Amino acid sequence: MASTEIELRGHIIDSLILPRVWGAIEDAGARFKVREMRVGQSEEEPSYARIEVIADTDEQLRELLGELQRLGAALAEEHDARTEPVTQDGVLPDDFYSTTNLPTQVRVDGRWLDVADIEMDVAIVVDRARGRAFARPMHEVRVGDEVVVGFDGVRVEPLERARHEREVFAFMQSPVSSERAKALAIGDVAEAIREARAHGGKVLFVLGPAVVHTAARRHVADLIRRGFIQVIFGGNAIVAHDVEAAMFGTSLGIDLATGLPVEHGHRNHLRGINAVRRAGSLEAAHKQGLLGDGIVAAALEHGVELVLAGSIRDDGPMPGVITDSVRAQGRMREAVRGVEVAVMAASMLHAIATGNLLPARVRTVVVDINPAVVTKVADRGTAQAVGLVTDVELFLGALADELRQEG
Amino acid sequence: MASTEIELRGHIIDSLILPRVWGAIEDAGARFKVREMRVGQSEEEPSYARIEVIADTDEQLRELLGELQRLGAALAEEHDARTEPVTQDGVLPDDFYSTTNLPTQVRVDGRWLDVADIEMDVAIVVDRARGRAFARPMHEVRVGDEVVVGFDGVRVEPLERARHEREVFAFMQSPVSSERAKALAIGDVAEAIREARAHGGKVLFVLGPAVVHTAARRHVADLIRRGFIQVIFGGNAIVAHDVEAAMFGTSLGIDLATGLPVEHGHRNHLRGINAVRRAGSLEAAHKQGLLGDGIVAAALEHGVELVLAGSIRDDGPMPGVITDSVRAQGRMREAVRGVEVAVMAASMLHAIATGNLLPARVRTVVVDINPAVVTKVADRGTAQAVGLVTDVELFLGALADELRQEG
Amino acid sequence: MASTEIELRGHIIDSLILPRVWGAIEDAGARFKVREMRVGQSEEEPSYARIEVIADTDEQLRELLGELQRLGAALAEEHDARTEPVTQDGVLPDDFYSTTNLPTQVRVDGRWLDVADIEMDVAIVVDRARGRAFARPMHEVRVGDEVVVGFDGVRVEPLERARHEREVFAFMQSPVSSERAKALAIGDVAEAIREARAHGGKVLFVLGPAVVHTAARRHVADLIRRGFIQVIFGGNAIVAHDVEAAMFGTSLGIDLATGLPVEHGHRNHLRGINAVRRAGSLEAAHKQGLLGDGIVAAALEHGVELVLAGSIRDDGPMPGVITDSVRAQGRMREAVRGVEVAVMAASMLHAIATGNLLPARVRTVVVDINPAVVTKVADRGTAQAVGLVTDVELFLGALADELRQEG
Amino acid sequence: MASTEIELRGHIIDSLILPRVWGAIEDAGARFKVREMRVGQSEEEPSYARIEVIADTDEQLRELLGELQRLGAALAEEHDARTEPVTQDGVLPDDFYSTTNLPTQVRVDGRWLDVADIEMDVAIVVDRARGRAFARPMHEVRVGDEVVVGFDGVRVEPLERARHEREVFAFMQSPVSSERAKALAIGDVAEAIREARAHGGKVLFVLGPAVVHTAARRHVADLIRRGFIQVIFGGNAIVAHDVEAAMFGTSLGIDLATGLPVEHGHRNHLRGINAVRRAGSLEAAHKQGLLGDGIVAAALEHGVELVLAGSIRDDGPMPGVITDSVRAQGRMREAVRGVEVAVMAASMLHAIATGNLLPARVRTVVVDINPAVVTKVADRGTAQAVGLVTDVELFLGALADELRQEG
Repeated sequence: MASTEIELRGHIIDSLILPRVWGAIEDAGARFKVREMRVGQSEEEPSYARIEVIADTDEQLRELLGELQRLGAALAEEHDARTEPVTQDGVLPDDFYSTTNLPTQVRVDGRWLDVADIEMDVAIVVDRARGRAFARPMHEVRVGDEVVVGFDGVRVEPLERARHEREVFAFMQSPVSSERAKALAIGDVAEAIREARAHGGKVLFVLGPAVVHTAARRHVADLIRRGFIQVIFGGNAIVAHDVEAAMFGTSLGIDLATGLPVEHGHRNHLRGINAVRRAGSLEAAHKQGLLGDGIVAAALEHGVELVLAGSIRDDGPMPGVITDSVRAQGRMREAVRGVEVAVMAASMLHAIATGNLLPARVRTVVVDINPAVVTKVADRGTAQAVGLVTDVELFLGALADELRQEG
Repeated sequence: MASTEIELRGHIIDSLILPRVWGAIEDAGARFKVREMRVGQSEEEPSYARIEVIADTDEQLRELLGELQRLGAALAEEHDARTEPVTQDGVLPDDFYSTTNLPTQVRVDGRWLDVADIEMDVAIVVDRARGRAFARPMHEVRVGDEVVVGFDGVRVEPLERARHEREVFAFMQSPVSSERAKALAIGDVAEAIREARAHGGKVLFVLGPAVVHTAARRHVADLIRRGFIQVIFGGNAIVAHDVEAAMFGTSLGIDLATGLPVEHGHRNHLRGINAVRRAGSLEAAHKQGLLGDGIVAAALEHGVELVLAGSIRDDGPMPGVITDSVRAQGRMREAVRGVEVAVMAASMLHAIATGNLLPARVRTVVVDINPAVVTKVADRGTAQAVGLVTDVELFLGALADELRQEG
Repeated sequence: MASTEIELRGHIIDSLILPRVWGAIEDAGARFKVREMRVGQSEEEPSYARIEVIADTDEQLRELLGELQRLGAALAEEHDARTEPVTQDGVLPDDFYSTTNLPTQVRVDGRWLDVADIEMDVAIVVDRARGRAFARPMHEVRVGDEVVVGFDGVRVEPLERARHEREVFAFMQSPVSSERAKALAIGDVAEAIREARAHGGKVLFVLGPAVVHTAARRHVADLIRRGFIQVIFGGNAIVAHDVEAAMFGTSLGIDLATGLPVEHGHRNHLRGINAVRRAGSLEAAHKQGLLGDGIVAAALEHGVELVLAGSIRDDGPMPGVITDSVRAQGRMREAVRGVEVAVMAASMLHAIATGNLLPARVRTVVVDINPAVVTKVADRGTAQAVGLVTDVELFLGALADELRQEG
Repeated sequence: MASTEIELRGHIIDSLILPRVWGAIEDAGARFKVREMRVGQSEEEPSYARIEVIADTDEQLRELLGELQRLGAALAEEHDARTEPVTQDGVLPDDFYSTTNLPTQVRVDGRWLDVADIEMDVAIVVDRARGRAFARPMHEVRVGDEVVVGFDGVRVEPLERARHEREVFAFMQSPVSSERAKALAIGDVAEAIREARAHGGKVLFVLGPAVVHTAARRHVADLIRRGFIQVIFGGNAIVAHDVEAAMFGTSLGIDLATGLPVEHGHRNHLRGINAVRRAGSLEAAHKQGLLGDGIVAAALEHGVELVLAGSIRDDGPMPGVITDSVRAQGRMREAVRGVEVAVMAASMLHAIATGNLLPARVRTVVVDINPAVVTKVADRGTAQAVGLVTDVELFLGALADELRQEG
C-alpha cells in the first residue's frame, strides 16, 4: 500500500481537470479520498482540491502520479526534481521524464524553473549552474547532461481556455465536421493572424504540394507579400511545383491557366528541378529569374524563413532541401520559436511533424479536404490543433480576401 | 455455333467504341472477324467497321449482341423490334429490353422511332397506333402495354464528345481528384449554366442539408433570384433547416451568424417544422412570413419547381414533402424534362436518385467534400457525371460570384 | 433578474455532468452560485450539488433550465409538468417539450411517471386517466392529446456508464479511429450480442447494400440461422441484391464467385425484381424458390422481423418494401422495442434513421469503411453509438466466426 | 510545317494504344493521316498502323513524338539515340529524355539495347564501351556520363495485358471501390505471391505503422517465417511500435491484448526507442531479447532485407533507420531489384515513394482503409498499382490464412 496527496487548483471542474484526474485514478485501479475541497462559488472564482491517492504498490503510485501530473496535479508535498547524468550520447536514463507540450516547470535546488522550448515527448535537461532547464530531444543529449527522471518536482500547467479564447476558435469544436459555416471559421483564423502580427508574433504556414497544384499558389505569395507569413515549412515537392509553375506555367504537367494537360508536361517537373540544380541554389535560381513571382520568390524577397525537409518520394532533390530528417527536424525546432499561429494546409507528413514540435499555446489550424488528415494530427497528440475540413484552394483564397479587408 | 454481323460508324476509335466492342466480345468468350474496315484518314473523318461476331450458342450470341448494342453497335441486318404485351400490372415480360441513358431508337413497322424520355434501367413501351415509343419504369406498365423484348431493332447512339465539349468539361477528367484548380472548374460550370439559360434550357440543383447548415443558403437563394435555377430537388431536411434559419437564425441549433451553438437550439429545428405544419403548407407559411428570404421563399417567389422527397430519417415531415418514394420519383421524372445542366451539391441520396433519371446528354456536376459520394454516383451508372471534390459552401459562393460577373 | 435552484446527484464529476452544467450556464451568459456541495470521498460514493442559477430574464432562465435538465439537473423545487391540449392533428403546442433519448420521467399529479418508448426529438403525451406517459412523434398527435410543455416536472437520467460497461465497449473510445485492433472490438461486439441473447434481448442489424455486394451475405444468413439476429432494417436494394444473388449468382452484374463482370449482368438486377413482383410477395417468391438461401430466405424461415424502407433511388420497388417514409418509420419504431444491441453495417441512411429512434441504453455499433458515415451518425445525436471504421465484409465474417466459437 | 511517320504494332486497338495516340495528336493541335492500316482479323492476330503526324513546327513535332513514343509508337525511320555528356555532377543536359516505368530500349550504334533498372522519371545513361544502358536518377549522374537527349532512338513497350493477367487481377478494375468481394481479391493476391515464390521471385511488403498498432503485427511476422516476404520497406515508426509491443505489450500506450490504454503508456514508445539506442543496433537489441517475436525479430532471423527510411516526424530515431532521404531512396532502389509482387499496407508516404521506383511489370497491391491513399498512389504514376480499400488488419489476417491453406 502506498499513498500520497495531490493538489489541484484553478478551474478544475469546468476545464475537466478534476474529472480526468478521478478517471485516471480509477483506470489505474487505484483509489482516492477527497481530503479537502473548495468549489469556486461562481465561474470567476477558482476551485481547490486536495486528494489522497492510494495505490497497491510504490511502483503503481509513481506511474500514476506521472499521469496525474500531466493533467495538472501537483504533489502536495514538494520535492526537488531528481536527475541522472547521461552516460552515452543520444541515450537517456531509463526513467527519464518525458514531456507534454504544456507549460512545464521543474524544481531545482528549491526553486521552480520554467522549462524552455517545451515540446512533446522529449526529455528535460537541467543546467544547475545557470539555474536553467530545457526541453531536449533524445538524440541531442550528450554525456554529462543532467536529465530529469521520475515525476517528483515537475509541474505542468494545463491549458485553461479563457472565455475569449473559446469564442475565437469556438467554431471548430467538432474537429472534423465539414458541415459548419466556413466563412465564419475563416474570419476567426484571419483575426488570430492579425492579433499575432499586431505584437510581432510569427505566423507559420505548413504547405503541402496541393497548394501549388491549385490556384492557391498566388494566394500564399500574396499573404507573404503583405507580411502575414514569417515561416514556411514544406518539402521538396512544393518548391519543385512552384518552380515548374514559374518556368512552364504547369503543375505536374497540368496547365494552371486552363486546367488541361499539356504535351509532355510531366517532364516539366524534372526540368524545373534540373534547372535549379544547375543554378546551384534557390537564391541563384531566383537571381536568374527562374522562380517568377511564386511562393519561393516571395519568401526569398521578404525574408521568410523557409525550412524544406526532404522525403524518400522526392525527385531531385532541389537545392535548399534538407535531406537528413534529423537535421531538418532540428531546423524546424528552431524556427517554431516565436510562432503564435500555425496554419497547416494540405500536408499530412509535415503537419504531424510540426504538430509534434509546437507548444500547446500556439493556435493551430489544420486545413485539409481529407478528414483523416485532421484526425491523424489530433490523434498524435496535437490536441490544441483545430481542424477545418475544406478545400485548401478556396480556403486560402478566402483567407487572403479576409485579410485584405480592413487589414 | 451462331454468328451475325454488326456495324460501327463514327469516331469509333478515338471515342473508344471499337476497343470496347472487341473487349466485350473477348470477355464473353466469343470471337470476331473484321469483314470490312475504313479508317478515317484524319480526325475529322468518321470510320466504319463491319464485324462478324461468332458465339457458341444462339443464347450467348443474343446476350452479347445486347451488350454490343449498348456500346453503339448496330446489327448489319435490320429487323423490327420484337414486343410482348404486359399481362400483369407493374410486371414486365421476362425478356424485356432494359435501357441505357443514351439516345435510343426502336424499329417499329420498318421505321426507326426515337424513344421519348429516355432514362437508365427502364423498359420501352411502343404505341404502335401513334407511331411512338416511350421509356417507362417497371411499376408503371399496365396490362396490354406493348413492351420491347430482346435486342433486335433497338439502336443506341453513344456519346461522341465533341472537341468543344471536351474542353468545357475537360478539367474534370479525374472524377475524384481534389488537387486540381477549382477556380477553373467553377468557371466552366458557370459557363455551362449560362449557355443553357441563353436558349431557355433548365438548370437543376439537387441540394443536401449541408447547403443550409452552412452559409451557402444565401448563395442558392441569390442564384434563384437571378434566374439561374429552375428546378430544385431536395428532402425534408433542406426545407426544415431553411425554415429554422429563417425563424431562428440557427441550423440544427448552431447560430448561423456566429457559428456557436445556442441554448436549446436543437429544439428550433422541431419548432420550425411544427410552425409550418400549423400553417398547413409552404405557401401559407410563406404568406405568414415564416420563410424569410431563404431558399424556399425564393423558390416560391420565382416559380422554381421544388420536388421534396421524404425519407425515413425525417422529422415532421414538412408539408410539401412527398413521403411516398415512388410518387416522389415520378415527380422527379417529370421535372427533369428540359433540364440541361444538373448541379448536385452535398446530397448523396438525392444525387444517386437523380443520376438514375437523367439522360446522358445532361451536363452533370457532383460537388461534395467526400470523394466517396462522387465515386458512388459514378459507380451507379451516371457516367456523364463529373465530380468536384470541394467544399460546397465555398463552391456555391464562388459560383454565385462567377455568375455575377459579366452575367 | 431571475433565479432558481437546481440539484445534481450521482457521479456528477467523473461522468462530466457537473462540468457540462457549468459550461452550459456560462455559454448562456447566465451565472451560478454553488449553495451546497458534497463530494463523494471515493469513487464508489455519489456526490451531490445544489446550485443557484441566475439569469437576466425569466425567458432566459426557462430556456437554460431546459438545457440543464437534459444534462441531468433537477429543479430543487419540484412541480408537476405543465401540459397543453393538441388543437390540430399532427401539430404540437408551441412550447412543447422535446425529448432526449435518455430515460425520462414526468411528474403528473404529484407522481413521477416513466415516459414509455422514449426516443429523441419527439413530444411527451400524458394519459392522466391511466397514469401513463408516452413519447410520441409530432405527426402522430391527435386533437385532445395532452402534451407536456415547458420544462417543469420533467427529469432526465443521464447515462452513468458503469466501470464494467466502460470496459466492454472501451475499445471504441475514439469513434472514428481505424488504427485500433479490430480483433478485440469484434470480440466485444460478439460478447454484447451473446449477453443480450442470453436473456432474450433482441438484436437488430441495419444492413446496407454493400453487405450483399460482397461475400458478407452468407455471414448474415448464417447469423440469422444461429439465432443471433431478430430484427433487420434495410432498403429495397438489399432485397434486390439478395434476390439477384440467389437467381443469377451476381450482384449488380458482378459474378459473386469470380468477382468478374458478367455479360449483360446489369440486367439481372431488374430481372430479379421483376420476378419477385410477378410472384407478388417475398413469401410467394420464397415458396417458388427464387430466394435461394440468402438473407431474405433465412429471415423468412426464422421469423426475423424485416422492415424494408423504400427510397427515391429504388428500382421496382420490391414487394414488401414500404414506400411511404412515415409508415416505414412507424414500423421501425415498433420493431426497435426490446432491441438491446444494434449493429449498423454499411448503411448511412438507415443508420441515421435508426439512430434517431433508439433509446440511449441500446448498445449500438456503426460499422463502415467510410469514417464520414460514423461521424454523421454520431453528429446527429446518437451519442451512444460507437463506430468501427473497417471493412464490413471482413467484419461480418470475423463476427460470425467469433460467435461460432464457444457459442 | 513538319511531319514524320510513326508505326504502331500489336494489340493496338484493344489495348487502347491507337485511340490514345490519336487523342494525343489531337490534344497537341497537330494532325494525322493513316498511311497504312492492317487490322488483326481476330483477337489473336496483331494489328499494324503507319501514321503520318503533321505539326506546325519542328519543335511541336518533336514534343509530340516524345509523347507518342511513351504510348508505344515507334518512328518509322529509325535513328540512333542522341546523347550529351553531363557537365556538372548531379545535373542533366537540358533536353534529357525522362523515362517511363515501362520496358525501354535505346538504339546505340545501330543496336537496340535494353535499359537496365528502368524506373519512372529518371534519365538514361549509355555506356557505349560496354554496349549497355541504364536508368539513372538525376542526382547520381557524374561529369562525363553520356545521357540520352530528345526522343530519337528510344522505344517503349507498352504493357499489353494478357488475358490471363487480366483475370488474375481482374477484381481490382475499379481502383478505389470498397464494395467488391474482398475474399476473392485476397485469394488473388495470395496466388500472385505463391507464383512469384515458386520461381524464386521476391515479395516486397511496404508497411505503415497501423500494421503494428493493430493485431496485424503477428500476421506479418508469420508471413516472414513462412518465407512469403523477402523485402520490407518501412519507417522509424514501424520499428518503434514493434519494439514497444515486444517490450511492453503496448502500441502508443494502448495495450494490444485488451485494447485499453495503459497508465503512462505513451512513454513506452520513447522507452523502447531509448532501449534500442542504448543497445546500439537492431541486431544487438535482438540479441538482448528486446525485440521479442515481432516483425523486426522475424526479419532479422530470416534474412529479410529491411530498408527503414526516416522522416521528420520520427522520435529517436531508431538505430538502423536511414535518416538521409537520398541515401534511403538509393537503398530502396537496390532492394526492389528482383521484386515481382509488392504489397503496400497502410503507408502513404512509403507507398508513393516505392511506387515511383517500381518497374511497371511488378504486380502491386495498395491496401488502405482510406481511398485517398490509393487514389494518390495511382495519381502519381503507378498505373500498375491496384487498390484495395479495406481494413489492413483484417486483410493481413485473411492473407496469412489464405497462404496457410494448400501452401
